[in-house]
Amino acid sequence: MTTIQHAIQDDYPDSFAHCYGCGRLNEEGHQFRTGWEGDQTVTYHKPEEKYTAIPGFVYGGFLASIIDCHGTGSASLALHRKNGHKPGDGVEAPRFVTASLEVKFTRPTPQGTLIKAVGQVEEVRENKFKTEIDVYAGEERVASGSVVAVVMPDNFAK
Amino acid sequence: MTTIQHAIQDDYPDSFAHCYGCGRLNEEGHQFRTGWEGDQTVTYHKPEEKYTAIPGFVYGGFLASIIDCHGTGSASLALHRKNGHKPGDGVEAPRFVTASLEVKFTRPTPQGTLIKAVGQVEEVRENKFKTEIDVYAGEERVASGSVVAVVMPDNFAK
Repeated sequence: MTTIQHAIQDDYPDSFAHCYGCGRLNEEGHQFRTGWEGDQTVTYHKPEEKYTAIPGFVYGGFLASIIDCHGTGSASLALHRKNGHKPGDGVEAPRFVTASLEVKFTRPTPQGTLIKAVGQVEEVRENKFKTEIDVYAGEERVASGSVVAVVMPDNFAK
Repeated sequence: MTTIQHAIQDDYPDSFAHCYGCGRLNEEGHQFRTGWEGDQTVTYHKPEEKYTAIPGFVYGGFLASIIDCHGTGSASLALHRKNGHKPGDGVEAPRFVTASLEVKFTRPTPQGTLIKAVGQVEEVRENKFKTEIDVYAGEERVASGSVVAVVMPDNFAK
């Protein structure tokens, strides 16, 4: 499987659906889609060619972006599951923001290849989740990282 | 001062000037410009509005990108200086790739504000540099991070 049928981003409220990385309403962005595959979280995406590092290879900032949004998406999936819900059941998903992001770049990432981010998410305390993420280009792991995400405070945008 | 007159990216060879973050030849990218201000390295940039997290606030992946390219640019500046050169003197700058990237997001980043990344770069071993970076939106620090960058291996893209 290389697509996500029920993505957590489909269940974000409209006000949280404009993210350049994963907002379904941001027509200029990546529109990452993150869902469960068993107990792992997965995002698939083929980046546009403009996201270049050097010609023929994918921009590291793109990989940081997919890791970041995969992390917030994984946290939302995990809390939603804890609350008894799953993507597509019609219940609005909880909104997270990134507290910290770490990326290790292990290999150059060829362009024109499907990118897959795979995450293991765990709750580290109430409303705070950490996701360990591996990123593959085809069969090859090209980066790994982690994201700590917290439920968006009510006063975040105030 | 809020612009960089002599950016290290001006002295990258054409083959390294297509980066979505800092390539002067990537017309769809950010075209970050990084230079010295005394012994600090600085990048200024006002992100386009499409780089949204939630409406009114800058996308975290954009901040990761400016930190990433600021880190490789700072490493190149530092090695270039060590070699007796400075941006604009007509000598090609050394090319770096990111080994690892860390970002802590400390505050929401309002859109429409000039972003400034400030770095302290040090050589950790031959051909390997670490830059500690603070990112400001106007006067307020919104993120901090670090980048470990290494000279691009000759066989990088092989």
